[in-house]
Amino acid sequence: MIRVGVIGYGYWGPNIVRNLHALDSTHVEAVCDKSEAALSRVRKSYPGVKTCLDPSEILTSPAIDAVAVITPVWTHYELAKAALQNGKHVFVEKPFTSNAKQAEELIELAARKNLTIMVDHTFLFTGAVRKICELTESGALGDLYYYDSLRINLGLFQHDVSVIWDLAPHDLSIMDHLIKGDPEAIVATGEKHLNGVEDVAFMTIYFPGSVIAHINVNWLSPVKIRTTLIGGQKKMLVWNDLVADEKIRVYDKGVQITSGDGIRDLLVNYRTGDMWAPQVQQLEALRVELDYFADCITNNKTPFNDGHAGLRVVRMLEAAEKSIQKRGELIRL
Amino acid sequence: MIRVGVIGYGYWGPNIVRNLHALDSTHVEAVCDKSEAALSRVRKSYPGVKTCLDPSEILTSPAIDAVAVITPVWTHYELAKAALQNGKHVFVEKPFTSNAKQAEELIELAARKNLTIMVDHTFLFTGAVRKICELTESGALGDLYYYDSLRINLGLFQHDVSVIWDLAPHDLSIMDHLIKGDPEAIVATGEKHLNGVEDVAFMTIYFPGSVIAHINVNWLSPVKIRTTLIGGQKKMLVWNDLVADEKIRVYDKGVQITSGDGIRDLLVNYRTGDMWAPQVQQLEALRVELDYFADCITNNKTPFNDGHAGLRVVRMLEAAEKSIQKRGELIRL
Amino acid sequence: MIRVGVIGYGYWGPNIVRNLHALDSTHVEAVCDKSEAALSRVRKSYPGVKTCLDPSEILTSPAIDAVAVITPVWTHYELAKAALQNGKHVFVEKPFTSNAKQAEELIELAARKNLTIMVDHTFLFTGAVRKICELTESGALGDLYYYDSLRINLGLFQHDVSVIWDLAPHDLSIMDHLIKGDPEAIVATGEKHLNGVEDVAFMTIYFPGSVIAHINVNWLSPVKIRTTLIGGQKKMLVWNDLVADEKIRVYDKGVQITSGDGIRDLLVNYRTGDMWAPQVQQLEALRVELDYFADCITNNKTPFNDGHAGLRVVRMLEAAEKSIQKRGELIRL
Amino acid sequence: MIRVGVIGYGYWGPNIVRNLHALDSTHVEAVCDKSEAALSRVRKSYPGVKTCLDPSEILTSPAIDAVAVITPVWTHYELAKAALQNGKHVFVEKPFTSNAKQAEELIELAARKNLTIMVDHTFLFTGAVRKICELTESGALGDLYYYDSLRINLGLFQHDVSVIWDLAPHDLSIMDHLIKGDPEAIVATGEKHLNGVEDVAFMTIYFPGSVIAHINVNWLSPVKIRTTLIGGQKKMLVWNDLVADEKIRVYDKGVQITSGDGIRDLLVNYRTGDMWAPQVQQLEALRVELDYFADCITNNKTPFNDGHAGLRVVRMLEAAEKSIQKRGELIRL
Repeated sequence: MIRVGVIGYGYWGPNIVRNLHALDSTHVEAVCDKSEAALSRVRKSYPGVKTCLDPSEILTSPAIDAVAVITPVWTHYELAKAALQNGKHVFVEKPFTSNAKQAEELIELAARKNLTIMVDHTFLFTGAVRKICELTESGALGDLYYYDSLRINLGLFQHDVSVIWDLAPHDLSIMDHLIKGDPEAIVATGEKHLNGVEDVAFMTIYFPGSVIAHINVNWLSPVKIRTTLIGGQKKMLVWNDLVADEKIRVYDKGVQITSGDGIRDLLVNYRTGDMWAPQVQQLEALRVELDYFADCITNNKTPFNDGHAGLRVVRMLEAAEKSIQKRGELIRL
Repeated sequence: MIRVGVIGYGYWGPNIVRNLHALDSTHVEAVCDKSEAALSRVRKSYPGVKTCLDPSEILTSPAIDAVAVITPVWTHYELAKAALQNGKHVFVEKPFTSNAKQAEELIELAARKNLTIMVDHTFLFTGAVRKICELTESGALGDLYYYDSLRINLGLFQHDVSVIWDLAPHDLSIMDHLIKGDPEAIVATGEKHLNGVEDVAFMTIYFPGSVIAHINVNWLSPVKIRTTLIGGQKKMLVWNDLVADEKIRVYDKGVQITSGDGIRDLLVNYRTGDMWAPQVQQLEALRVELDYFADCITNNKTPFNDGHAGLRVVRMLEAAEKSIQKRGELIRL
Repeated sequence: MIRVGVIGYGYWGPNIVRNLHALDSTHVEAVCDKSEAALSRVRKSYPGVKTCLDPSEILTSPAIDAVAVITPVWTHYELAKAALQNGKHVFVEKPFTSNAKQAEELIELAARKNLTIMVDHTFLFTGAVRKICELTESGALGDLYYYDSLRINLGLFQHDVSVIWDLAPHDLSIMDHLIKGDPEAIVATGEKHLNGVEDVAFMTIYFPGSVIAHINVNWLSPVKIRTTLIGGQKKMLVWNDLVADEKIRVYDKGVQITSGDGIRDLLVNYRTGDMWAPQVQQLEALRVELDYFADCITNNKTPFNDGHAGLRVVRMLEAAEKSIQKRGELIRL
Repeated sequence: MIRVGVIGYGYWGPNIVRNLHALDSTHVEAVCDKSEAALSRVRKSYPGVKTCLDPSEILTSPAIDAVAVITPVWTHYELAKAALQNGKHVFVEKPFTSNAKQAEELIELAARKNLTIMVDHTFLFTGAVRKICELTESGALGDLYYYDSLRINLGLFQHDVSVIWDLAPHDLSIMDHLIKGDPEAIVATGEKHLNGVEDVAFMTIYFPGSVIAHINVNWLSPVKIRTTLIGGQKKMLVWNDLVADEKIRVYDKGVQITSGDGIRDLLVNYRTGDMWAPQVQQLEALRVELDYFADCITNNKTPFNDGHAGLRVVRMLEAAEKSIQKRGELIRL
C-alpha cells in the first residue's frame, strides 16, 4: 500500500483524496493546504487523516511514499522537485510544469533517483478515451485525417494562466496518446477580453502525413460543449463527453478516391452506413489512474502518462503561447 | 415586373427559378444550361419558359432585364461582365468572383452603366440572421467579443475549389454584415486529404477592438453541423440552423470585471440568467432576396448585398487561401 | 400505365398528384376539387392535367382506371363506392371509412368486381417502418413486450373528427402491421378543451400474450414529437421520426428472469450493451406506395394495406371512440 | 437542532444521512440497517454516528427527536407508528404507506400527539417544480388543460411493488401540488412481463373542469426519460428533468376559440411566439426539504408535504392498482 501525502485541497484536491481514500492500494497519510478552512473540511470528512499548512511536513515525512501535487501550475516544479529530492514518487496535476525546462529537470531527477512521475492526464483513463484508443489502434478508423475538439464553457477556472493552459492540456494529452508520430508545428490564435490573458483561443497542430488537429477553447461560451470529432479514412467518430450514455458514436462513413474515366480524373466517393455507439466503461477515471499510479510504483513500471508525456504537452502549450503572441505564427516543435 | 434570364440549372439553379417563377415582381424569361437533361427538367416543370444551351441567347436577349448567374465561380466574371455590357442587371451566386480584381472590374462596370449587382448571400435574408442583426444592432448583446462558426458535413459540393471557397462564404458574408469595422487580418490553416484541395480548414479573422471571428469548415465530418456562437458582453447567443424551431437561443449570461480589494486586483464575475428563444420569421430566404432584387432594380436602390459586399467576401477568401498555403501566416487585409 | 383520377387537392392531395405525376407506372388523368383556387394551382403546376369541380366526371370517365380519394373521411365511403361501381380501383386516404360497416361493404364490393382497394397507410412504406419490420420479423428484438407511441403537436389538422381519428391511424396501422395476433381490447381516455372533440387522448390496446400498445395523441402540445418505443425481450428500439439521420436506434438491452437460490426466488437481470442506428432507406414513402398500387393493379396482387387492413384500423378507432365516451371502459374487439 | 435517527441505509438512505449531516439544523444521532455491511459504510463515512441493527434502539432512544423511515413501503406503517408512539416526529419515504387506512391512522396518531409527519415528496423541493408552481399559481399558463408525464427507464428499483408504486408517486405528488381541485377518478392500464407485477403502466387521472393528467411509467425502456408537458390556455411548458440546464421551457403558444361567421362556427386559432427557459434554482432538493422538516418541527408548522399529502398520493395509487387489475375500469376517488 502506497502512503500518499496530498498538497492542495482546492477544486481538484478533494477528488484526489476521496479516491486515494477509497482505494485499497493507497492510503492518505496527510493533506496540506494553505487554507485552514480547507483543512477543516478534510478533518470533517476524513477524521483519521493528518492535516498541515506547511508542505514541508509532507515533503519530508518518512511515513510518506508518494506526494500528490494538486496546486496551481506555477508551484508544481518547486514542490515536485522537493518531493523527488526527498525520495518520494510524485503525482502532478496537469499541466506538468510551467515550461519545458522545468519538466526536463524533473524527469532527469526522477530517473536518477529511480522514482516515478505520473502526470494527471485523467482523460486517458476514461472509458471513452480508452474505447477511442482501441478503435484507432485496431485500425477500425483507418488512416487518421483529423482530430477536432471543441471545449468551451462560461467561466475561467484559473486566474493566472490563459484559456489554453487551462483547457487545452486535456486535448493535447489525448492527441499525444492517440495520434502516432510527433507533432511538427503549431499555429494558435485568440483574443483577450477580460483580465489580460486569452479567454478565447484556437490551435492548429500539424502532424506528419497530413494529420491535422484543431482545438477550440473558450471561457466565454454561453453553453458548455465537450465534443471531439475524429475523422479516419474508413470510419469517423464523434465523442460527446457531456452525455450520460452513448458518449461515442462511430459512423460507418468514409471517402474513397477512385480514378475516373479520363486520365486525370479523380472521383471522390462518399460512403454512408450505420452508426454505432459502443458501450463505454463507467468507472471513475481518476480512481483507475490512481490505482495505476500505485501499481507503477509497486511494480516499478513506467506509466504511459509519465514525465515525458507531461513534457510533450508542456512543449505544445509553450509553442501555442508563442504563436498566439505573434498572431498565428507557425512555431515548429 | 423584372424579366430574368437564368444561367445555370444545376444544384442551386432550380431554387432560383422556382422562386423567380412564384414571385409577382419577377418573370422567368429563359433558362440556360449546358446540359440538355437539365433543360428538359425546366421544360417539364415550367412549360412556358424558354430554354437554351448557349448563354449568349440570354445575355443578348432584348426581352431580358436581368441575368441570374448560377454557375461555378470561375465562370461568374465572364458571364456577369457580358450581362452588364449588354445593359442587364445581375444576380450572381456567391462567391462573387474568383478574385478581387474581377470583382472590382464588375463593380466599376455596373456603376458606369448604372446597373444593379446583387451577390447571392442568401443567409442574410433568413429569419435567423435578421433576428441576430436586430439583437446586435439594438445593443442587446453589448460589445461583441467573438463570432465562432462550425459548418461541417460529409461531402464536397464543389470540385474545383477548396472547402474554404465552398462553405466559408456563408459565414464571411454574415460576419461582414454583423460586425462593425473592417477585418484587419486573417490566419488560416487546414489540410488536404483527398483531391488536392483543402477539405478541412480553420480561419481566424481579427477585427478592431479585440473582436475575433473563427470559422471551422470541413467536408469530412460524419455529422452535419451548422452552429454559430456569438459572445457579447451583455448576452451571448447560439444559432443552430439545423433545428426547425428555436434556431436562436439568447443567453442572459455575461462577464463583468470589477476592481477587487487590492490595488491591482481585477475580479471577473460571471452572470447567468434565463435563456430565451425568440420566434424567427419562417419565410424562404431566397424568395425574400429575389423580391428585394426586383425592388432594388425597380426603385433604383443599392442592395446591401451589392458588389462591394461580394468583393469584401472575396478579399477574405483570397487572404485565407494565401494564409493556408503558408501554414497560418497572418495576412493583413 | 395506370391512369388515375384524383379527388381532393387540399393538404395531402398535392403530394399524391406530384408522386403520381413523377412515376412511370402512373399517369394523372384528372384532378377534382370543390375549390376553383385549388384547381387553378393544379393547372399552373401540371398544364396537361384536366381539372373538374364535379367528382362524377372522374368517377365515370372511361379514360380513368383508378381513383384516388383524398378527401375528408366522411366522404370516403360514397366516393369509393361510386368508383368501385364504375369499375375503378381505389386508393383511399386513411382512415379508410367513418365506420366498420362502410369498410365491410366496400371490401365486399371490390371483391365482387375484382378491383383493388389500397388504403393510404403511408408510414408502412417509410424506410423506418420497413427497417423496424425487418427487425421484428427476423426475431432480432425477441418476444415483443410493448409498443408505445407519442404523436403530439400544436394544431389540429381536421375539424370534423377528434385527435384520435386524426393522429392515431398512423400508429394503429403500424401496430397492425408489426404485431402478430389480433388486438383483444381497447381502453381510451381523453378530454375536450376546444371545439367539442377530444384534443388530448390516450389509448391502450391489449394484444394476446401480454403484448401491450399505448398511443398518446395530442393537438395541444407546444412541441412536436413523433417518437415510438418498442420493447422486446432481446432488444429494444426507439424510433424518432423527426430527426434527419439515425431515426431508429436499436439498444442491445434486455431483461432476463433467472431462478434465484430459494425455491420461489425470481431474479430479474438487466443487460445493457451497445446502441446501433441502422441506415434507413431515404425514398419518399408515398412514391413507393403509389408505385406499389400500380403494381398491384397491373399484376392483380392483393396489397398488404388493402381494405381489410383499413377495416382493422377503423374498428380500433370505433372502439377507442366508444371507450373514450365511457371514460376508459374496456371495449373488446 | 433536531436530533435524527435514520432507519434504512440502502439506496436512498445515504442521501438522507449525508444531507442531515451537512445541515446546521439537524444532527444524525444514529443509523439503523439490517445489513452489517451498510452499517460499516456508515461508520467509515461518519465516524461519530452510532449504528444499530435493531430499529427499536432508535425508536426508543431519548436522545432522538425525529425518525427518518427510509425503508421499503410495507414497513413504513409499523416503524412510523412506533416512532410516533414514542413521541418522535417522522420523516417517511414515499409512498407514505401501503394503503390509505394506514395513512389515516398515522395522521390521527400524529395529530393526537402533536407531532410532525413529513412525507418525502422530494421533487416538490426541486428548483424546477418550484418554478413550475410559480408559473401556474401566478396565472402565467392560464387555465390548465393537461399534465402529461413520461417517466421511463430500464430497471426496476423495487421488487415488491409494481412500476406504479415505484415511479408514479413522483408525478402524483407533483400533480397534487400543482393542480387545484381534487382528482375525480382514475383509469389505469398496464402489463406484467417479468416478475408478476406491472412493469409498464399508463394512468389517466380526471380532474374537475376538463383538466386531465396522464402518467406513463415503464421499467422496460431502453432510454431514460423524465419529461412532463403541461398545457395551459395561455402558455405551455415542457420540463425535462434530465438536462443540466434549461430544464423548463415555457412556450408562448396557445389556442383561442373565436366565433366564426356562421352562427354555429367555432374557429380554433393557434398562436405561437417565443420560447423562454427561466433559470432554475440549483440547490439540492433533499437538503432544502430536510431543512424545512427541522424548521417545521422547531416552529411547530405544518409542512405542505404532510401526512395528508402522503395520504392523497396513496389513495391515487390504490385506485390505480384497482383499475389496472380490472383493465382500465374507472375508479372514482
